[in-house]
Amino acid sequence: MAAPSQDLMSTMVSLCKRRGFIFQSSEIYGGLNSCWDYGPLGVELKRNVKEAWWRAMVHSRRDIVGLDASILMHPKVWEASGHLAGFTDPLVDCKECKERFRADHLENLKKCPKCGGQLTEVRKFNLMFKTFMGPVEDASATVFMRPETAQGIFVNFLNVQQAARLKPPFGIAQIGKSFRNEITPGNFTYRTREFEQMEMEFFVPPAEDLRWYNYWKKMRFDWYVSCGIKPENLRLRDHSKDELAHYAKACCDVEYNFPFGWSELEGIANRTDFDLRQHTEHSGKSLAFFDEESKQHYFPYVIEPAAGADRAALAFLVDSYAVEGEGKDARTVLRLHPAIAPIKVAVLPLVKRDGMPEKAEKIFADLLKNSVRSFYDHTSSIGRRYARQDEAGTPYCVTIDSQTLADDTVTIRERDSRAQYRVASGAVVAAVTEKLKAAIQ
Amino acid sequence: MAAPSQDLMSTMVSLCKRRGFIFQSSEIYGGLNSCWDYGPLGVELKRNVKEAWWRAMVHSRRDIVGLDASILMHPKVWEASGHLAGFTDPLVDCKECKERFRADHLENLKKCPKCGGQLTEVRKFNLMFKTFMGPVEDASATVFMRPETAQGIFVNFLNVQQAARLKPPFGIAQIGKSFRNEITPGNFTYRTREFEQMEMEFFVPPAEDLRWYNYWKKMRFDWYVSCGIKPENLRLRDHSKDELAHYAKACCDVEYNFPFGWSELEGIANRTDFDLRQHTEHSGKSLAFFDEESKQHYFPYVIEPAAGADRAALAFLVDSYAVEGEGKDARTVLRLHPAIAPIKVAVLPLVKRDGMPEKAEKIFADLLKNSVRSFYDHTSSIGRRYARQDEAGTPYCVTIDSQTLADDTVTIRERDSRAQYRVASGAVVAAVTEKLKAAIQ
Repeated sequence: MAAPSQDLMSTMVSLCKRRGFIFQSSEIYGGLNSCWDYGPLGVELKRNVKEAWWRAMVHSRRDIVGLDASILMHPKVWEASGHLAGFTDPLVDCKECKERFRADHLENLKKCPKCGGQLTEVRKFNLMFKTFMGPVEDASATVFMRPETAQGIFVNFLNVQQAARLKPPFGIAQIGKSFRNEITPGNFTYRTREFEQMEMEFFVPPAEDLRWYNYWKKMRFDWYVSCGIKPENLRLRDHSKDELAHYAKACCDVEYNFPFGWSELEGIANRTDFDLRQHTEHSGKSLAFFDEESKQHYFPYVIEPAAGADRAALAFLVDSYAVEGEGKDARTVLRLHPAIAPIKVAVLPLVKRDGMPEKAEKIFADLLKNSVRSFYDHTSSIGRRYARQDEAGTPYCVTIDSQTLADDTVTIRERDSRAQYRVASGAVVAAVTEKLKAAIQ
Repeated sequence: MAAPSQDLMSTMVSLCKRRGFIFQSSEIYGGLNSCWDYGPLGVELKRNVKEAWWRAMVHSRRDIVGLDASILMHPKVWEASGHLAGFTDPLVDCKECKERFRADHLENLKKCPKCGGQLTEVRKFNLMFKTFMGPVEDASATVFMRPETAQGIFVNFLNVQQAARLKPPFGIAQIGKSFRNEITPGNFTYRTREFEQMEMEFFVPPAEDLRWYNYWKKMRFDWYVSCGIKPENLRLRDHSKDELAHYAKACCDVEYNFPFGWSELEGIANRTDFDLRQHTEHSGKSLAFFDEESKQHYFPYVIEPAAGADRAALAFLVDSYAVEGEGKDARTVLRLHPAIAPIKVAVLPLVKRDGMPEKAEKIFADLLKNSVRSFYDHTSSIGRRYARQDEAGTPYCVTIDSQTLADDTVTIRERDSRAQYRVASGAVVAAVTEKLKAAIQ
């Protein structure tokens, strides 16, 4: 059913703008095609996605360390990796209407699908953005904005291995922006020219590649579930032989059932020793690992789970979106996992008098002191404030009302069940931090 | 004294590589001028710097929200901001030896300082990196990599204000990469072409600009001190009138006493309403704020504390570096503030037998469960492990030794005092988390 799905995407775009999750980049100038800006709620959501990934991949493990390589790299990196020669899309132009098409998206390469005019020959278009470093704009000054973070890991392989004193199996993880000059970006933040990757290269003895490939397929699928994605909206799809990239022995996508169809969230690839060997050859510096036990050099194989932070954020938004109830009970809610929700607790004094703000501010200050991401709101009716927090995906609201002044209790309101119950005002911070800790671990 | 200072910088570069803080980008290809990669310890250090900034600027306040705008923006943004016309360095070339110089760095504009040859006229060189979006490389497809994150905030001013329902005084904070095609980068990670900014634009009623300007000068100075920088190595320096950028009414730098001299860590500028007015004029969309109380539109003034994450990280490294003791007591130590230190606790079983690893793993698991960034090391002598942790700036080591097996106590060793004392093994996690909490708050 195409129509309702496209409706859902339009609804998401509009909710994201209204609530401050995502705005179109440079909107006042008519926007910049496929570029998006994360607003106050969106930046916190995306921070949480990246934090959850880093916690799972780096901080909770002894065998993976982090890296943060620069976006601009030596041009020879892209020669060695194969991106300069091979990272291309096939393009054709219509000689009549001048429209441009991806040749692999056309059924008939003779006739323009728009005006029927004659098409040019197929040409290869490189997807890397290029720029010039230093004041001279010529070939010798050309550098590229990285199309993947992975190469920053490969060229640093020995530096990291030696400084951190690691031996395979071990991994190097990195989060950062990459850029691809896509001909056909689209589907909101799903396919964009500027995007943020969460990549980890796991270096293993070649004989252990299959075991670790299967291990990471399972781990990465489970990660999305642990962050709240409904398992029925996720699947693993193995690539067929003819889909594989030139460097890969095997690849499997974690796909999400987006409104526009099942689409890749993340790829888990067995890159073999392709990259380490290529960089060894092109740089003249061996990136082989020296195994102290066997006294031998060898090139580890690489298992790579490569995820998109923007795609993950979009999946969390879409998956958590629900419209419920009827009449005055109707509401829109984002049932975000507490680890992913931008705000964990909203503190709401019922009215701006009778000592309620003072009580509320004390609770708010206590939450901040305990590093609980909280939000203070004293404007408009309590019903509207709950509605706004539902749309923001806030798991808990704490309301300070007239009964608070009588018996020093406050109301905790749960987002998903809409259950409300009273707790002693002095116990509220412990109560919500305990709930959050239980949900996040 | 130039010589010892330059020695200190060389020592830092070499320590940073050896311990895995910072590597030269694309090192195996001879490096890429002024680009650097953060290794396993460096990425954690820089994450901590950004986290401390975000906590101080966003999470601990009710009047500031976050934003994460794209690096690629509509080219009209840079026309309006003045960057397209005015963000230039004056250059001259030597007609003989072809060397290129910044004209404002030369004393004599007639004679090449290198070969004595004749120099060309001064030309303006724009510092923005340009690239092409889409498959056609022509003027209409030219876009720029942002030279500052600030403009992403200005063009989103009304979107954010309305979605987050804010009124001046309020701020919008952002952390992200910017790019400037500097002619003379240098001093390790201090001046680089790719760098990460931490900028906050604080929108205030025009009449309140002086008060907030002074407020932010003090707040930002104090932030560095709260993160462990020695106050005697910090100073505020007001810009003289002729130093001010075209958009600024006043500006003050927070400077740090680097080995290469007092240099800017951060600028606090009064940008007035320049940017909001420029974007209003160029986009035809008013960015004036509507004040519900006075029923009037007005352009807020902007106070901007703009810091560099890489410069802050470098200052923390340099400031904390110490060589102490003599003979076998000699050591190199980074006395990093616990909030900034990449690793908070190292867990060290004295030997890999007699049940010590099991005890150590339990403590390590408990630390992870309590979100304490920890490191497990069971290789080489305990003295060498302490030395490595001193160089990594780790505040606490927990050592599991033979006495542990007898009375179930472990040794806590403090980095700065080298004091050692025993604590019951079951109490060690509570003890170090309490110490860390006290230091970080």
